[in-house]
Amino acid sequence: MAKKTTFNVSKVDNFSEWYSEILQKAEVTDLRYDVKGFVVIRPWGALIIDKMYRIYEDALRKTGHEPVMFPAVIPEDNFKKEANHIKGFAPELFWLENKKGEDRLALRPTSETAFFQMYSLWIRSYRDLPFKRYQRANIFRDDTKSTRPLIRGKEFYWLETHDVFSNKEDADVQVQGDIKMTDDIVHKCFGVPGLLVRRPEWDKFPGAVYTIASDCLMPDGKLLQNNTMHLLGQNFSKPFNVKFVDENEKDCFGWQTTYGPGISRILASVLSVHGDDSGLVLPYILAPIQVVIVPFDGEGVEEAVRGISKDLMTKGINVKVDNEDKRPGEKFFFWEMKGVPFRIEVGIKELEKGKASVFIRDTKERVLVKIEKLSKEIIKMGVEYDARLLARADGLFDSKIVDCDDKNSIGRILESGKIARFSFCSIDKDGKDCAGVIEKEFAGEVRGTRADLFPRDDSGEPGEEAWGKCPVCGKKAEVVVYAGKSY
Amino acid sequence: MAKKTTFNVSKVDNFSEWYSEILQKAEVTDLRYDVKGFVVIRPWGALIIDKMYRIYEDALRKTGHEPVMFPAVIPEDNFKKEANHIKGFAPELFWLENKKGEDRLALRPTSETAFFQMYSLWIRSYRDLPFKRYQRANIFRDDTKSTRPLIRGKEFYWLETHDVFSNKEDADVQVQGDIKMTDDIVHKCFGVPGLLVRRPEWDKFPGAVYTIASDCLMPDGKLLQNNTMHLLGQNFSKPFNVKFVDENEKDCFGWQTTYGPGISRILASVLSVHGDDSGLVLPYILAPIQVVIVPFDGEGVEEAVRGISKDLMTKGINVKVDNEDKRPGEKFFFWEMKGVPFRIEVGIKELEKGKASVFIRDTKERVLVKIEKLSKEIIKMGVEYDARLLARADGLFDSKIVDCDDKNSIGRILESGKIARFSFCSIDKDGKDCAGVIEKEFAGEVRGTRADLFPRDDSGEPGEEAWGKCPVCGKKAEVVVYAGKSY
Repeated sequence: MAKKTTFNVSKVDNFSEWYSEILQKAEVTDLRYDVKGFVVIRPWGALIIDKMYRIYEDALRKTGHEPVMFPAVIPEDNFKKEANHIKGFAPELFWLENKKGEDRLALRPTSETAFFQMYSLWIRSYRDLPFKRYQRANIFRDDTKSTRPLIRGKEFYWLETHDVFSNKEDADVQVQGDIKMTDDIVHKCFGVPGLLVRRPEWDKFPGAVYTIASDCLMPDGKLLQNNTMHLLGQNFSKPFNVKFVDENEKDCFGWQTTYGPGISRILASVLSVHGDDSGLVLPYILAPIQVVIVPFDGEGVEEAVRGISKDLMTKGINVKVDNEDKRPGEKFFFWEMKGVPFRIEVGIKELEKGKASVFIRDTKERVLVKIEKLSKEIIKMGVEYDARLLARADGLFDSKIVDCDDKNSIGRILESGKIARFSFCSIDKDGKDCAGVIEKEFAGEVRGTRADLFPRDDSGEPGEEAWGKCPVCGKKAEVVVYAGKSY
Repeated sequence: MAKKTTFNVSKVDNFSEWYSEILQKAEVTDLRYDVKGFVVIRPWGALIIDKMYRIYEDALRKTGHEPVMFPAVIPEDNFKKEANHIKGFAPELFWLENKKGEDRLALRPTSETAFFQMYSLWIRSYRDLPFKRYQRANIFRDDTKSTRPLIRGKEFYWLETHDVFSNKEDADVQVQGDIKMTDDIVHKCFGVPGLLVRRPEWDKFPGAVYTIASDCLMPDGKLLQNNTMHLLGQNFSKPFNVKFVDENEKDCFGWQTTYGPGISRILASVLSVHGDDSGLVLPYILAPIQVVIVPFDGEGVEEAVRGISKDLMTKGINVKVDNEDKRPGEKFFFWEMKGVPFRIEVGIKELEKGKASVFIRDTKERVLVKIEKLSKEIIKMGVEYDARLLARADGLFDSKIVDCDDKNSIGRILESGKIARFSFCSIDKDGKDCAGVIEKEFAGEVRGTRADLFPRDDSGEPGEEAWGKCPVCGKKAEVVVYAGKSY
């Protein structure tokens, strides 16, 4: 009977099965919608996503970004204005059936070409700069690779910022700010470390000068890109006529950046990195229910539970009292599987001592806490809980980056689900062939160079110091790159 | 010079021009996006919409609705399952271009046929009921009538709830709850009165048993439907197989309701009802900036402004200090046009008395307030402000409903931009011809009977008591209806 609500699939042995099972069992998503590549997000997932959006939107507003809401359709002509952009996105576009000779419309795969048409009307003078806007949106890409819920699909949720500056320096600084926001939120706040790298030339965003991305290392050893930030330079401002008059009354083209935190994939990363064989382990800051209270039979219990629950709610804690007619064991399994950080058990024995038992999801420890101190303790324990998830994830992540000196060791490291760090000839176009060899022989991708040491060429900052030769072509190594398998 | 930032179009004389102008000038929307029927929502509009969503979502969660996120595409087969539904929506659907023999997909015009496919998998037992879910979403309808920003377009923003109950009574009660939520939020909270009516048989939602709608009376005398709630009965549960096992282990079809608060149109209603010839007048509860502070030159002003602004922000008030290099008059006009409820002016003269001058947007009065009491006073004045907007709107609305005894007076009342209330033969199918006459002769629509006295037939509650005969066919009147012009 209790069997039905347990969850016991080994994340380490079979991540793929663990992931599919937990999304369905914990009611995060449902794959049974009739259209391939489209997923339904259930309340448990939607509530986490809502918290993520609020955290991101608060941070974006604090950095001067104002919200806008753009149409989900973009005319074909807009796409065509930037040659690399349309070349990159054409295969993935969903088009609407044409009506009576009207313009052909595509569903947005990203919204540069929608926003910038309006920017050319809105921006007039250097006084309008910096100009920072964002939207939360659903976007559409007809990705024909095999789909996986939240990881690879045809519609997903994200935020996109599109900023304009009067010069390249300010734009570069914005990209660094976007990198910092990614680290502050996904890493420090949600506890998910990322490989923050500058993508090689051959792997950048269609139309960008350079692309920086954050890759989460998933438990099966594959990298999942969940954030990107791009310097667009003047590649879009010229064809879209995004101009401003400077202090000397001279017409200039704007310098642009784009930042796209991928909410669906960030959710996939959070669930995958923290979960264990009992199910989800949600960060306290993101859990839709932060504390579940399970009352035991006994005199005075109901009243005590009502008091505790009211006290916690007043302090802004998300609480649920599980009064269902089920055995306590069943309830325990269920809420552990859903990833609720704390379970408070209230029974007569503890009540007599004026205490309640608190079960902690990640460590599976139990502590006794005085009832009058519960709300204060939970808030404190919540902070410690998230710090613990972060430290554990960081420790694991750091241990997975291994320096390699030759091709064979790169192959071994990739095969073992780790990230290979090695000296490499170049991430400019020249290096593409060598990266192709790595991909062909080991099914691994050269993901790029460390982002926090970039921009290297402009600032004179050295990148990570390369050692020896490129393990593929044998030429003098110029850069240190990170490679891994990916989805 | 100041001329540029003033706004002086008469709302009463030319609402249509006033509306277009203020949306553009106050930067609520921008119509210059290249695709007809699609509008860009700018920060001022997006921030108001965000506040509306938060108010609605809080209210929905409190009434047991959990959020979900469904795909924006729906397969053709799903639409076809309910005959009236596809008949009603077919002309308005946007279809995606077909790919390699896959199912034909439409963009959602509403999501019954997406949700209920999953409901048949999620609902098993009477213990799962009531089952209440909602989503905030963009929806798509290829409405070919002339478009108007936020009022009539091809993509708009809304919320939709889809609930399932074990019996008709509970479903009817839910519709009454949805009516109450509409009144609590749109009317009492946003200050926009609505004609809450049961739609005639010939004007109900495709697939519904009955439809109740809220119509806002716009300043040009036209009615704008901004909320609908439907009893779907078992019309969808049968074709979609939404079944549950009852207490006696018997298989039963669920009873369903749908509620759709139309956020885009609610915004249009709020802006139109409260605005005046100086521009927008935003309810305090919805204003993105609730207080703007305009400092005058003088010693100690900057420091005082910093203190005031910090104090207000700490109390949760949205404040902006306008430090731009413009004349005060220009700033005044600008923020009045944007509809900011309160403007605090800080100058040396007032500072010497320890006071600041507060300009109130709707009454255009100025009051002097002690600086140490400012935050407390603003919060109090905000409540009074919204109560005043509500009372004013209610007074105007009530004066616009006029009883009519014959066809000629109905015509006169409709022509004068008011709502005609009269006895009528029937809002069942029988009455359609008479309604057609009213529409043909006066370009007015019979919108329905009072919703709060419904369901009349089932409960035995009398509707409003009809008097005399139907002014069109001369038969004995059965109901009292409301008619008006509409968009």
